[in-house]
Order: sequence, then C-alpha cells, then structure tokens
Amino acid sequence: MPRLIDLSADVGEGYGSWTMGDDARLLDSLSSANVACGFHAGDPSTMRHTVELCRHRGVAIGAHPSFPDRVGFGRRTMQMSYDELFCDTVYQVGALAGFARAAGVRLQHVSPHGRLGNLVVTDEAYAAPVLDAIAAVDTELAVVTYSGVLERLARDRGMRVGLMGFPDRAYEDDGTLVSRQEPDAVVHETELIAERALRMVETGTIEARSGRTIEINVQTVLLHGDNDASVHAAIHVRRVLEEAGVEIAPLSEVLDA
Amino acid sequence: MPRLIDLSADVGEGYGSWTMGDDARLLDSLSSANVACGFHAGDPSTMRHTVELCRHRGVAIGAHPSFPDRVGFGRRTMQMSYDELFCDTVYQVGALAGFARAAGVRLQHVSPHGRLGNLVVTDEAYAAPVLDAIAAVDTELAVVTYSGVLERLARDRGMRVGLMGFPDRAYEDDGTLVSRQEPDAVVHETELIAERALRMVETGTIEARSGRTIEINVQTVLLHGDNDASVHAAIHVRRVLEEAGVEIAPLSEVLDA
Amino acid sequence: MPRLIDLSADVGEGYGSWTMGDDARLLDSLSSANVACGFHAGDPSTMRHTVELCRHRGVAIGAHPSFPDRVGFGRRTMQMSYDELFCDTVYQVGALAGFARAAGVRLQHVSPHGRLGNLVVTDEAYAAPVLDAIAAVDTELAVVTYSGVLERLARDRGMRVGLMGFPDRAYEDDGTLVSRQEPDAVVHETELIAERALRMVETGTIEARSGRTIEINVQTVLLHGDNDASVHAAIHVRRVLEEAGVEIAPLSEVLDA
Amino acid sequence: MPRLIDLSADVGEGYGSWTMGDDARLLDSLSSANVACGFHAGDPSTMRHTVELCRHRGVAIGAHPSFPDRVGFGRRTMQMSYDELFCDTVYQVGALAGFARAAGVRLQHVSPHGRLGNLVVTDEAYAAPVLDAIAAVDTELAVVTYSGVLERLARDRGMRVGLMGFPDRAYEDDGTLVSRQEPDAVVHETELIAERALRMVETGTIEARSGRTIEINVQTVLLHGDNDASVHAAIHVRRVLEEAGVEIAPLSEVLDA
Repeated sequence: MPRLIDLSADVGEGYGSWTMGDDARLLDSLSSANVACGFHAGDPSTMRHTVELCRHRGVAIGAHPSFPDRVGFGRRTMQMSYDELFCDTVYQVGALAGFARAAGVRLQHVSPHGRLGNLVVTDEAYAAPVLDAIAAVDTELAVVTYSGVLERLARDRGMRVGLMGFPDRAYEDDGTLVSRQEPDAVVHETELIAERALRMVETGTIEARSGRTIEINVQTVLLHGDNDASVHAAIHVRRVLEEAGVEIAPLSEVLDA
Repeated sequence: MPRLIDLSADVGEGYGSWTMGDDARLLDSLSSANVACGFHAGDPSTMRHTVELCRHRGVAIGAHPSFPDRVGFGRRTMQMSYDELFCDTVYQVGALAGFARAAGVRLQHVSPHGRLGNLVVTDEAYAAPVLDAIAAVDTELAVVTYSGVLERLARDRGMRVGLMGFPDRAYEDDGTLVSRQEPDAVVHETELIAERALRMVETGTIEARSGRTIEINVQTVLLHGDNDASVHAAIHVRRVLEEAGVEIAPLSEVLDA
Repeated sequence: MPRLIDLSADVGEGYGSWTMGDDARLLDSLSSANVACGFHAGDPSTMRHTVELCRHRGVAIGAHPSFPDRVGFGRRTMQMSYDELFCDTVYQVGALAGFARAAGVRLQHVSPHGRLGNLVVTDEAYAAPVLDAIAAVDTELAVVTYSGVLERLARDRGMRVGLMGFPDRAYEDDGTLVSRQEPDAVVHETELIAERALRMVETGTIEARSGRTIEINVQTVLLHGDNDASVHAAIHVRRVLEEAGVEIAPLSEVLDA
Repeated sequence: MPRLIDLSADVGEGYGSWTMGDDARLLDSLSSANVACGFHAGDPSTMRHTVELCRHRGVAIGAHPSFPDRVGFGRRTMQMSYDELFCDTVYQVGALAGFARAAGVRLQHVSPHGRLGNLVVTDEAYAAPVLDAIAAVDTELAVVTYSGVLERLARDRGMRVGLMGFPDRAYEDDGTLVSRQEPDAVVHETELIAERALRMVETGTIEARSGRTIEINVQTVLLHGDNDASVHAAIHVRRVLEEAGVEIAPLSEVLDA
C-alpha cells in the first residue's frame, strides 16, 4: 500500500527587485508551498506571481506569516503582545487569501515563518494568538508546524495539523532540530537527504545525531530551495520517494487519507 | 417616500502609536466606513479595532487601498505599472477582508484613497488595474468613487457603483471638486455642510462655486472626521437628514433600494 | 552658587502626517532635545523641522536612536546582533547629524530610545554596540542614559556622560524606575513634578515610592510633552527651578561646568 | 601624457538577506563607488560593510540617494515637494556619512539614483532641492550626474561636478541615453564596452546609435556589476584603459588634475 506524503518548501521569498531561490524549478517538485506574505519577504507582485506559479502546477498554497521584520528576514525574536501577534497574522493570511481568490484557488494551510515558527512551538504566548488568528480567518485551514504548543492548541480546537519533517536537518534525541549554530546541523548530501526523507515517510523514524533511532510523525517533508544544489536535492527526494511507491500529494489529501 | 442615503467617512487612519481623528465618535454618525489597509495608514492592530468599532455599530466596511506611501499618506502621485497597481490593491483588500472575516462580517465596498482615488477617476492606466483587482477578489464588492473612468469601467463590467458626494467641498460647474490649493475649496460651517448634504440627497443638485446649480448623482455622502468640529458636523448632518425624513443606511442597501 | 542643570525631552516623534505632542511649545522650556531619527518615529521632514525648531531656540540637539520598529514605537524588545545594533545606531546618528550640519549646528549627545534605552542600561550585549557606534561617529558626543552598563562603558572609554532624572516617574529604593505596569508609576501633579525636579537638582536626592530618600546623580532632567498638561508641567518645572536660582543650560555646559 | 579617469559603479544594493551583484569582485576594478543609502536598497549593515569593502581597496565613496521606494528599487517616479526631496537627500547623505566617519574616510560625492537620477537632469523641481541638500551637508561634495539641470545648478554654485559616461549604453545623437525600453539600449559585448570606454576617455567622443560621432564630457565611467558577465566587463574595461596608458583614479583626483 503506497504511503501518501506532502512535499513542501518556503517560496515567494524575494522582495521587489531581489530574488531568493529559483521558485519555478523548486515548485516542480512540490505538492504544497509556504508563501511569504510581505512581512519578512514577498511584496504584492511577488505574492501574486508565486501564487500563479503554484496554481499552474497544482501545488497547494499556504500562508507563511512572520514577525514584521524585513531587514532581519523574520529571524530575530520580537516581543509582541497577544493583540499584535493576532492582528499581524490575520493581516498576512488575509492578504495572501486575496491572491488565492484572485487566482481561483483556496488557501490550504498556514505555517509560521522563521523565528515566529520556532516560538509557536515552545511558547504559548506566541502560539495562542497565532492559532486564534488562523481560526478566526478560517477554521478549515490546516496548521503546519512541528511537534509542540501550536500543534497541541490546534488539535484541542479540532483543527487539522500537518507536522513537518526536515530530511536535511540533524535531529536531537528528543526530536528537536540541532541548532544551526552547530557545525553538523545541516545535511548537504543529496543522496542522504533523499534517504532520510524516505525513511521518515516509510518508517516514521529518523536517525538522530547521536545515532539513536527516534520516532517522528510527519505529514509534510519540508525541502529547501535557496540554491542550485537544494533544487537538485528536491528533485532527487521526489524521485526517490516516487520510485519507492510513495505518492506525493498536497497536505490536505494526506490529512484526509 | 423617504430617500435612502449612505453616510460614510475615511477611518482607521492612525498608525501604531499615532492617532488620526476620533473614529469611535465619528462612526456613531455613519452607515459605511472606508478603512485604511496599511499602505498609507492603518497597522494591523488599528485595522482590527476599526473593524470592531464598525461591527459594534452596524457600520458597513469598505477597503480604502492606497499607493504604498506611508510618509506621504498616499497623497503623492506614484508611477506604477498595471501589475503593481493590481497586486497592491489585491493585497490591501485581502488583508482587510481577513479582519472582516475574523469579525464575522463581509466587506461591502472598495474606495481608492487619496491620490490614487483621484487618478482612477481620470486615468484608465490607474482605474483598470484597480478595478480588475477588486473584481478578481470579489465581484460582489461595490466600487465607491466619483464620476469618471473607474465608475465607467465598473458599470461596463456590471459591478455595483456608489458615487460619493462631498457636502464640505466646493464644486466646479463641471461637477469636479475645487482644488484644495484654492482658498474657498472647503466649507467649514456646520449648518452649511448639513444644508448642502440635504440638498444633494433630496434634489440631486448642489450649488457650484460659481453660483450655478449643478446635478450630482450621490449614493454616499462622504464626511470628514479629523477634528472635533468635523465630528460635530457629522452628527449635525445626520440629524438634519433624519429630521427631513431621509433614511440613513449602508451603501449596499442604498444600491439595492 | 547657582546649580546648573539641563532640561530635556524627547521630540520630533511625529511621522509623516501624524503628530505627537506640541514640540514648538515644549521646546520653549528646554535646553536640550532628544530627536527621533526615523526608526521609531521621525521622517526626514519632521527631523529637519525639529532641528530648526531647536536651533531657533538655542536648544542643543541629541540623537534618539531606536530599534527599527515604527509600528511598535521602539517599545518592543528585539533580539539583534552586535553588528545590527552598531550599524542601526551609526545610521540614525549619521542621518540626524546631516540635518544638524544643514542647520549649521552640531550634535551634542546621543540618548537611546524606548526599549533600547532600557536594555543598554542592563545588558552589555546592547550597550556595547551602541556605545561603539557613538564613539565611531564622534567621541565628542555625550552619552545620555541612566545609571548602568552604558554609563560604565562610556566612562571607561573617557566619553562624557549625562545622567537623566525623571521627576514625573516614581523610583524604587535601588534607584530604578517603577514599572509603568504599576498604578503609581507616573506622577501627574504639576506642583509635585516641579518639587521633585528641584529637589533632584538641589540635593541630589529623590523620595522613592517607599518613602525612603535615595541619592540620584542627575545632569539632565527629562520632561515629557505628550499632551497639554505635560507641556504645562514643563513650563512650571522650568519656572520653579529658575526661581530657586538654578540655571538652565544645555548638557554640554552642565558637563563642562 | 596619460589621461586620468574615474571608474565607478552602483554598489551596496542588497537589502537584509538579499544580495545584488558581487560587490567585492566589482570593487576590485573601481576607483569610486555609489553606495545605496537605505531608500531603494542598502540596510545599515550592508552600508557599513560596503563602506568597509571600499576603504580596504582605496575606492572613494559617494552617496546614492533615491526616492523612498524599496519595492520599486527607486525606479518609479514619485511626485515630491521641495521640502521632501531636500530632507530625503540630507537624511540619506547624512546616514552614509556616518558610516564613512566610522570607517575613517570621507564622502567624495553624491550621485542621485534611478528615477531620481533621471529627473534631476531634466527637471529643476527635482534638481534644485537635491542640490541644495548636498550643498547644505557639505559644499566640498562633488555632484555626479550627466549633462543637464543638476550639472548647471551645481556649476552655478561653484560646486565640483563629475559627469558620467556609460560605455555599455547606446546614445542618441543629442547625447542622451537610448531608453531601456528599446531593444538595442544596452551593449553586452565585453570587447565593445571596453572599446567605447577607451574612446570616451581618449577622444571625448562616442558613436551614437545612428552611427554619428558625438562629443561627451566624461570624468567617471560608470560600469555595472549585476552579474558575472558585468563583473568580467569591469575587469576588462580597466585592463584596456590601463594598457592604453590611462590612469584610473578617484573622481576627486580627476577633478583636481
């Protein structure tokens, strides 16, 4: 019986004249995409054209809201009130939903970006307003995160959750990611990334940095597309998964299966 | 038979710690509101709270998209491409629609702000992308403008149009507004503003600066609320209209009547 | 022998069409001013006109650099690297120095704003890059802060330091300010503010919230000017000080005395 | 006798995480650089590091002020008042001067960017405030432009002017550049760019698109560095000039020669 999995990545992260990654090529390998909404990246024109790139390929679209910090690319911690986090999330999800409607598609999910994406996993002061905002806009939106507070709050409310797996990142024994500050945090070898992705999908496990086998629950495999090598890795991951009989499908299909 | 008219104003034009006007008091007199969407004014928190102020009062909500120019409050001409104007409009309308959904209400209309609001009346290069954007998001949205290109394009497409009347502005014989550069461009007397509003509604005419009576087609009377005097004027206009048997109702009701 | 003291306040905190406080009236009572540099408030036109207001009155000018957070008015903690803090400070001080040169005056001092202003007092990770930036631009600039890490680093480097006293804020026994979250954090009575300012200057002490008398070292008395009452308080503080024989002079004169 | 010429380019045009061109390699070929000041590109960290790259190579630094339009990269016409243009220019030049001071160097020149750079050549309403701002900050700053209104105003005031030549752009018979909308506006062949640069410097002429030889007055040859080919072209231009006995030197030396 073929396992079903979503392949996703962060896209639309250019701004004005500046580009980041090669979205058109990366999207050829994906079934879902996290689209920047203007706060860390993504001006309106970039958002529209990213949505169009997704639509043409049948890639499902999700919002990728961030702290309001373009210079810092949403990677710097900001202290924000419940109201500010709630409103910034509604604003960004709403803006992207406008482009989705203009393209005749629907938003599938919301996945907080960067530092906000980390904090919603560990700190309810960040997770609660973000979840409340997603739910306020549309309770049908899936919440994409990794195991932690936001996941729990979303499940408590009966919302759909997609958990991310990172085949190009090293894991600790407790299932958290090895910090990027550490030298072996990122896996660079294309073959190894694909192998880890396949194992994640087929067995629900991954080998942690320590060598121990740990369990991880993954509905969407998150890839990266910053450079030629990463686009190539995405192509390879997809091929290896498909050759192993894994079916690639947007998250909503994975969750409904 | 009572005439039906919409009373509207621009609201939500603070930004962060900065306020502009007294929206809570002004909204007590209105039936529709043009809400800033973040490009000339209106951060996400201000947008949410403005939408809540409207919802509590039953005031219908419209988006007030602008050129991307916060320092210039959207009053400076910007040369923009079709794609940029289309995308900036979708972004702003979508963002406000997010807050409307979060508040359980629907957007009623879109009314371009400031310099963009002037250019869509006279220049198809501005009117076409703005209209296409509104239609792409939701063809049920009414287009609020004054007589000109945007109006024509909207009617050609079968969309609903609400034309604004300005009881506190002087008119030229051709129905355009006297430029704010000129000394007698603005009417300051509360009694006179109310009288002009009533005449507009009851007779479909206004006295131009020259003394000539000209016809104007008005579905929404636009008021201002920058200061105490203007809030007082809004209260007075509403009272004078109601005492004359005019019913105040949101634009969509006026258009459906 | 008359004591010499500087009277200062934060000014130029409007942005574009938005105003904050009545700088022209407030500046009539001051000898130094902290001018916003564009990151929390203060667009270029506001900066120029604020510098002109100061120059006409002989009020000495200081830069008031902030976190890059206009929506949050610089009041939200941001995690920033040494390089980011250094560069953001150089940028803001340099920009204001441009307006000072254009007006034929020199910057007197730098005083970090808002949350950054708090963190430089307690956290060397914030204080060191800010101080290094000030020194890199001009070692003649005085550093205006309250007792803490930035003060110590500045003195270690042989730079001039002006310490602020807050007559309208309640103090803890250890000389820190009572948090604004607490109900009695702010003193509102004009007479009491003036009395506390005079005592600060004449005796180097203030009565803490507990009733204890504590010592404070003050070269510049910081006033506020957000509203009519605060402008009136500034006028009153100045009059009370002058009537007691205290001379009001820019910080650099106080430090050279 | 060796002719002396300045080789320059626009640098520091990244923003936050986004890069543009390979400044480090490009600067190896230059004697002067136009550094973005934050309004169209260039956050504070990028500015500092660009200034450092210049200083290490002995490349003279100029400010490259722009319309306040990051999304549009300063390429969209904005209607701005005298005061706004004056203040935006002072702000940007001052900010870059801060980084120059911090690096122990001085600004050599100011060269308006993009659409502003075009308008100051043809429209006194743009040229006058920009020139007044440069002069207000420092009358020793050279003004870098091409033949037109800004040049004339600068000469009238006795300021030094550096005129740019564009070896990779096609010229009309009247000495203006062929619009980028037209297919043959840009010269792509490295050999031809170098040949045109050399002719410009040695003979003060260039072949216009029509085939006519026209005179151009050039003190600085402007190169581009957006991609690998353009960096290679810069290296080649420098080599061809030097082999022909032309000395490459910062603009101020060219003007003083």
